[in-house]
Amino acid sequence: MQQGGSSSPSCSASTPHCFPLGHLNAAACGSETSPEPQKHEVNAHSAPAGLSRMRPIIIFYTWYLLGLALSVACVVCVCVWSSKWRGGFAWNGSGLQFNWHPVLMVTGLVVLYGNGAVLYRVPLTWGQNKLPWKLLHAALMLLALILSIVGLCAVFDFHNANKTPNLYSLHSWIGIAATALFAIQWVAGLAVFLLPCSPISLRILLKPVHVWMGGSILSLSIAACISGINEKLFFVLKGNTNGTLPYNALPPEAVLANSLGVLIVAFGMVVFLILSNHKWQRPDSRPEDMAYTPLLQEESE
Amino acid sequence: MQQGGSSSPSCSASTPHCFPLGHLNAAACGSETSPEPQKHEVNAHSAPAGLSRMRPIIIFYTWYLLGLALSVACVVCVCVWSSKWRGGFAWNGSGLQFNWHPVLMVTGLVVLYGNGAVLYRVPLTWGQNKLPWKLLHAALMLLALILSIVGLCAVFDFHNANKTPNLYSLHSWIGIAATALFAIQWVAGLAVFLLPCSPISLRILLKPVHVWMGGSILSLSIAACISGINEKLFFVLKGNTNGTLPYNALPPEAVLANSLGVLIVAFGMVVFLILSNHKWQRPDSRPEDMAYTPLLQEESE
Repeated sequence: MQQGGSSSPSCSASTPHCFPLGHLNAAACGSETSPEPQKHEVNAHSAPAGLSRMRPIIIFYTWYLLGLALSVACVVCVCVWSSKWRGGFAWNGSGLQFNWHPVLMVTGLVVLYGNGAVLYRVPLTWGQNKLPWKLLHAALMLLALILSIVGLCAVFDFHNANKTPNLYSLHSWIGIAATALFAIQWVAGLAVFLLPCSPISLRILLKPVHVWMGGSILSLSIAACISGINEKLFFVLKGNTNGTLPYNALPPEAVLANSLGVLIVAFGMVVFLILSNHKWQRPDSRPEDMAYTPLLQEESE
Repeated sequence: MQQGGSSSPSCSASTPHCFPLGHLNAAACGSETSPEPQKHEVNAHSAPAGLSRMRPIIIFYTWYLLGLALSVACVVCVCVWSSKWRGGFAWNGSGLQFNWHPVLMVTGLVVLYGNGAVLYRVPLTWGQNKLPWKLLHAALMLLALILSIVGLCAVFDFHNANKTPNLYSLHSWIGIAATALFAIQWVAGLAVFLLPCSPISLRILLKPVHVWMGGSILSLSIAACISGINEKLFFVLKGNTNGTLPYNALPPEAVLANSLGVLIVAFGMVVFLILSNHKWQRPDSRPEDMAYTPLLQEESE
């Protein structure tokens, strides 16, 4: 569950599992023999072009593209479920307003969030200046947070319009906890890792907490999605009482929504795989390189 | 989600965040300057006894004890729910047989599993011979797997006795996937990391997969538990139809079972915190030290 952990694997120039990015290798592999921190410049073309040395990059992008494909599949699947099987969308307190809830939570709290989490792992982002990618990371996470909050508003409005109590189920407890922790994480991340007023010692102290909390929030989001899909299918597929086939007969809607749950879990596993592989970690995410120039100074350069 | 990852943080003898275990420090901190792999002997008494140097160990054991306390709380909570609120236990196809399901899944697939996963992080286990702890890790995981399978048998028997279909809900899909992956993980772990016939290159290749899959299984288990508790409460707290208060009125049983869900999530977060901290990683779990003597050779020494 490491997004930008505190360590680096040992390897030499001939170690086959390290990324073939020329002098990036020494930094990525955390050589402790260099007396001075190195500046890292990405120039993949300067690396030996042998196919065998490109293999780690190809493996990374294979997993990354699988993650993107699963992202698209999750969003398409939840949209089809809400529009085709649940009647579409509205914002009028009806069940059609509720339909925004799964779409926005899956898109925001899982898909956008997971893609924002792995952003720094993409070798294309390993330029000398981390700032644009930090801003993109923060922007993706902010968009994810906004979608999640609108998704919560959809279900609160629906409950209030139908005189249904809010926040009684375990699903709602886990979902609201995930969103609240996400909001705290985003504000703390902005204050600690982007604004220039935070001391470097605080960044070094809080980086592992940010990484651990980031992974925990994704796990909570997935648990909330699984329990929410499960709950919704028991609510709407009642068999004799509302003219549908019961959930336990596995009608097509149940297969679709269960498959959505499987896709969400598969996406989460790919995200955790990418985050857990230290060979795919951004070179200057090592703690000794965390003393980068903060936001305002970088902007003035 | 690192259980025994492939990297090690850089530090010196004076680095305050490294464990104060004397010469263990150099190994734990992954110094690349030593030309020969070092043998690691645990002797905490040989370390400087200053309170400030004991701080990392105190912090580790604080989290570890919190994990143990949450383990006990989860097991007590699920037992009280099944015995006091759901009528107790039997093995006769009735609802009392179903009651074994949450108890055994929470105890096996979450509590025992999570404690088995963090075993190698306990500094007391960092002796020169890893074999006893590998065997204890395997034994704890086998016990967890057996409890989980018996927990699945309980619900299958209950469904079959009541002519209820099996494996239709998303909860059941996620739960069966978690148990199946756990079984595969255990057999693969035995074959690759304990039996002497597996080559070292295979161990090095599969260690990160074992670690990533281990974390994924725990995440799946937690998602299955949350969705299962949520589903059960909607089933049994129906309000007017069975004389109970409805779930949305949050009767005491609902508060207890929701709290069980929160405890499970908190336990999972503590486990992931311990696993994600490389400073708490067993020194000889580094890939260059994975060429340890396999089971039969170790036994014959």
